[in-house]
Amino acid sequence: MKEVVLGALGAGRIGKLHADNILAMPGVRLKLIADPYIDEDWARTLGLSTTLDPAELFSDPEIAAVLIFSPSNLHAEQIITAAEAGKHIFCEKPIALDPDRIRQALLAVETAGVKLQVGFNRRFDPDIKRVKQAVDDGEIGQMQLIRITSRDPAPPPMDYLRISGGIFLDMTVHDFDLVRFLSGSEVDEVYAAGAVMVDPAIGEIGDIDTAVTTMKLSNGALAVIDNSRQAAYGYDQRIEVFGSLGSISAVNLTATRTVLATAQGVVTDKPLHFFLERYHRSFRVEIEQFIRSIRDDTPPPVVGRDGLNAILIGLAAQASLERGKPVRVSEFSGEDPG
Amino acid sequence: MKEVVLGALGAGRIGKLHADNILAMPGVRLKLIADPYIDEDWARTLGLSTTLDPAELFSDPEIAAVLIFSPSNLHAEQIITAAEAGKHIFCEKPIALDPDRIRQALLAVETAGVKLQVGFNRRFDPDIKRVKQAVDDGEIGQMQLIRITSRDPAPPPMDYLRISGGIFLDMTVHDFDLVRFLSGSEVDEVYAAGAVMVDPAIGEIGDIDTAVTTMKLSNGALAVIDNSRQAAYGYDQRIEVFGSLGSISAVNLTATRTVLATAQGVVTDKPLHFFLERYHRSFRVEIEQFIRSIRDDTPPPVVGRDGLNAILIGLAAQASLERGKPVRVSEFSGEDPG
Amino acid sequence: MKEVVLGALGAGRIGKLHADNILAMPGVRLKLIADPYIDEDWARTLGLSTTLDPAELFSDPEIAAVLIFSPSNLHAEQIITAAEAGKHIFCEKPIALDPDRIRQALLAVETAGVKLQVGFNRRFDPDIKRVKQAVDDGEIGQMQLIRITSRDPAPPPMDYLRISGGIFLDMTVHDFDLVRFLSGSEVDEVYAAGAVMVDPAIGEIGDIDTAVTTMKLSNGALAVIDNSRQAAYGYDQRIEVFGSLGSISAVNLTATRTVLATAQGVVTDKPLHFFLERYHRSFRVEIEQFIRSIRDDTPPPVVGRDGLNAILIGLAAQASLERGKPVRVSEFSGEDPG
Amino acid sequence: MKEVVLGALGAGRIGKLHADNILAMPGVRLKLIADPYIDEDWARTLGLSTTLDPAELFSDPEIAAVLIFSPSNLHAEQIITAAEAGKHIFCEKPIALDPDRIRQALLAVETAGVKLQVGFNRRFDPDIKRVKQAVDDGEIGQMQLIRITSRDPAPPPMDYLRISGGIFLDMTVHDFDLVRFLSGSEVDEVYAAGAVMVDPAIGEIGDIDTAVTTMKLSNGALAVIDNSRQAAYGYDQRIEVFGSLGSISAVNLTATRTVLATAQGVVTDKPLHFFLERYHRSFRVEIEQFIRSIRDDTPPPVVGRDGLNAILIGLAAQASLERGKPVRVSEFSGEDPG
Repeated sequence: MKEVVLGALGAGRIGKLHADNILAMPGVRLKLIADPYIDEDWARTLGLSTTLDPAELFSDPEIAAVLIFSPSNLHAEQIITAAEAGKHIFCEKPIALDPDRIRQALLAVETAGVKLQVGFNRRFDPDIKRVKQAVDDGEIGQMQLIRITSRDPAPPPMDYLRISGGIFLDMTVHDFDLVRFLSGSEVDEVYAAGAVMVDPAIGEIGDIDTAVTTMKLSNGALAVIDNSRQAAYGYDQRIEVFGSLGSISAVNLTATRTVLATAQGVVTDKPLHFFLERYHRSFRVEIEQFIRSIRDDTPPPVVGRDGLNAILIGLAAQASLERGKPVRVSEFSGEDPG
Repeated sequence: MKEVVLGALGAGRIGKLHADNILAMPGVRLKLIADPYIDEDWARTLGLSTTLDPAELFSDPEIAAVLIFSPSNLHAEQIITAAEAGKHIFCEKPIALDPDRIRQALLAVETAGVKLQVGFNRRFDPDIKRVKQAVDDGEIGQMQLIRITSRDPAPPPMDYLRISGGIFLDMTVHDFDLVRFLSGSEVDEVYAAGAVMVDPAIGEIGDIDTAVTTMKLSNGALAVIDNSRQAAYGYDQRIEVFGSLGSISAVNLTATRTVLATAQGVVTDKPLHFFLERYHRSFRVEIEQFIRSIRDDTPPPVVGRDGLNAILIGLAAQASLERGKPVRVSEFSGEDPG
Repeated sequence: MKEVVLGALGAGRIGKLHADNILAMPGVRLKLIADPYIDEDWARTLGLSTTLDPAELFSDPEIAAVLIFSPSNLHAEQIITAAEAGKHIFCEKPIALDPDRIRQALLAVETAGVKLQVGFNRRFDPDIKRVKQAVDDGEIGQMQLIRITSRDPAPPPMDYLRISGGIFLDMTVHDFDLVRFLSGSEVDEVYAAGAVMVDPAIGEIGDIDTAVTTMKLSNGALAVIDNSRQAAYGYDQRIEVFGSLGSISAVNLTATRTVLATAQGVVTDKPLHFFLERYHRSFRVEIEQFIRSIRDDTPPPVVGRDGLNAILIGLAAQASLERGKPVRVSEFSGEDPG
Repeated sequence: MKEVVLGALGAGRIGKLHADNILAMPGVRLKLIADPYIDEDWARTLGLSTTLDPAELFSDPEIAAVLIFSPSNLHAEQIITAAEAGKHIFCEKPIALDPDRIRQALLAVETAGVKLQVGFNRRFDPDIKRVKQAVDDGEIGQMQLIRITSRDPAPPPMDYLRISGGIFLDMTVHDFDLVRFLSGSEVDEVYAAGAVMVDPAIGEIGDIDTAVTTMKLSNGALAVIDNSRQAAYGYDQRIEVFGSLGSISAVNLTATRTVLATAQGVVTDKPLHFFLERYHRSFRVEIEQFIRSIRDDTPPPVVGRDGLNAILIGLAAQASLERGKPVRVSEFSGEDPG
């Protein structure tokens, strides 16, 4: 098995998680990690070479692929640079919040003929894969409705929210991707209803914290997502796909399957509290599949267009919220996705 | 305890169910039941007096209240006649599909000073009452979102569908009432997305069989209902109310709580298949509370305005579906419900 | 449908429950109820005729069957008197605590050629019937193990415990009957381990409050029952039958199927707290089937021998506890039940 | 953090699993692995040094601890040799099937002053740790009963069964350890009822495949374990501890938390099929804690006496089965464990 040599940009929370996973993968070497604020203690414990200068990665001929775990506003530029350097690319979502900027990045990738995988990790979660399998194998018949509940345990800091692009581009974008993934179909039209119920400060910066988003899909089915920036009981991640023969649902995962029965009631665990716990396996599997696509020279499982289209749906949702009526995604895509 | 004497109009499926329940209630006498197509064998077995002529009920001075279980298109007229005869009235939903006709009926009730209870039975279901209690007692904090799934096991006959008023007035109207009941609030605006996924014949008569309806409530919260005319696994009736301190959900009821584990999987019961099974207790309790409101001379727990407002939301939903955009309920109520 | 006329002995808690049920049964008339301490208000509300003298029932030629809901120590004598009067008999468990006394009663029944049904109501519970069906239909293959958990919410009063016959004859006897019912087999040998963990006063009267009873069945399978006189979370009634193809379990029933999720955990209802709630349907069904066996002249679904054999197992369990080793049931039956 | 250097004896299924886990532990080095039938391809892929000769490990002064993953019949001898070489020892269960042989091994460990941890991995399972925590924190009050269901998906090969020591020493021994672990108490007396229900061939070699084992504990509580060598639906591992304030249960883990609802029923996943999947985390944690006990010079979390006492209970269970009556564990321990 030929070794695949990687370089990483960014060693924040998500970058460290990925690095830990990659170190345990046979046949893969994480040669260099670039971060202007690198945690040297962490890197030393893991025996990782570091640099403050991303250019070192791009110029290293041994490095076959670059993993982009940097702040979102750097993604597009780093994709372009990496593509021009002939590196394959794994990039955390989003590529950019501006679709034109995304298109520039995708053009660079296409021109260079390198692979780009976007970090929609949830597609690789075992429970979600089981849902997808039930859909694809016809266990629920013809798809009629997708229903997603996606609620965070607590809002991110206001400093983050200000540059997040709003709830639809920051949070719902994962759910939009799942709608596309599970349906194998595009979203034609979006209607978003929103409210500020969690924290008035979120409203003051022009964002919302509670949303119900309805979609019409090109396969004729409907989809609906409800989001909240805060669920008191933890990270609530549920999916249901309903079809002509039945439904397949994924309910919340818990730390244990224990049950405490007392005079106060019968109590089970709250959902796993944090996205890194809930989706921990998916982060490893998405990188494994990226490595495999390089090794086998096959298309990566999540491509640039997936990154673009989820953002386009998010923009349509945002426009719907502002206009108070449904918006067609084609308004943003410059094409008819049907 | 003073006996309450009742007369009933209609002894079809729902009328028989109610009659069975009433016969087991202490202090209540079902004196006469009028139906042009009365099932005499059934009546004789239960020892019920029958007539083909509704007028007999209205003119009987001993009868304090009339129970209207007749076809929907007769409800409003019978309410008016009963009110003019000074009888208290229990009427199955809907009062009428036309809000002006409903208003005529409510005016007659008000003028006569009699009580009118509308048959939104689900409010009396033990599970739904527990949800309401959690909301009212503050167990979930400030309400942020109501989520209802309401799917029938199979569509009604096409003959019925043609006169049903459409999915929103026929089926979702129960869910609209629950949104009002659980929130203690009014619906300001409705957006309905619909599809014909179950049976093309439903589309041919201008109706839909699959719907997602989003609502903005006057308390600032959102609500969303998903409906289907057919769920392969049975009658799917779930509610979730989400608030600042947590959520309260009601999942499906089953005939047993048994679990069969074999090499094929771990199998539990499907939901109770039929609305008469699922909500059987609620049908008895709603009548008990109607009797109590007569006995104690208190307002009935579901009043005429509840019957009207649910229909107005349904009309707004239908208009939203047709126009492809959100519609304010006030357009149909002639007032601002906020 | 020919009317079946009944008389009842005893109108305590269980007698009232049965009377309420019987009044709602078509084609059945509860003509007379005898109780030296009859609650006249209750009887008047229901329109029931009462007497202080049981002899009135026995001598009434119209009464076809006598329902014995009196204190346990009167059961055998009343069975004998009723049999001699030619009445069919439904008798709450136990017939007696002394097997010779039971045999006398059964002999009287046999001699008179009347029907006797013993009140092992749990056999008619819908969940337990589903378990039985899975066993009988071969859904779990060849039976290998029966596992029963049976825990009361709280111990009965000490005055009752003193005359109860001990935990095995009073409480476990229901579970012993279920082992026989579910297996369609007899119990050959019993080993009982006991402890006083709930209340030392129970130990002081020579009884135990916590028990694990293991049985070897004549079909080769094993069975195990764990009992407690007190479960803080309510009435715990679970059954599992394990076989070569899988298992069928019945878990606890609850008042609602609601789920409350907050920062404190995910909470569902405690088990239904009281045996009258948990098994309410079974009490009605057992009488319905008794009526049917009279009407159709078929054997009742639970016969005198069922009442005897459960007691014999209980006596063997008690002997096992005292001797500290397994005891064969045949020691008490005077026969080899294999 | 000072590096801990390890050597391993045995690289079969369980040895490979442990080696994989150890390679991902920071601050730990697996220097050498000895196995006469070593899988060289596997070792090379992981970069592991191997030898056919265990003596190399014992004589290597850099190796601080020896991990014994060899066949059970070698354990005691290897413990003695390792202890004499001054190595700390982690040994898979059982130390030996003969208690005198175990005592020899423990004496060698004590004499050498090294640490010995026995591989009762289930103690480190997150669900079981949560049960233990509920017990220790008083969440269920005073312990009254422990109930364990432990069923394998399929019997091991007959060749293995012949040398396994029988179901109690091979399979139930894990459950006996859990009874001791959860109760913090010793087992005084055991009664075992057994049957051959799965495979007659198991009976022909003098073993059983179905068992119910009842125990009296020195804290006054009872415990009961039911075992089967074959559950058609997979690996069934459930625990319930019942106390004066309630109960804590651990139910089966599944690969996903998805629910498929169709006309055939509502289906969830079968239990994880294999002990390596079910308890995969526990295998890592037990080694981590062994490493920590070396690093911090604290007693290991599972000691030699734990290995001995579980075997003594197993011997008492086997004797009980053969004699058909309860047996005191002290008969085998040569002491009164109370």
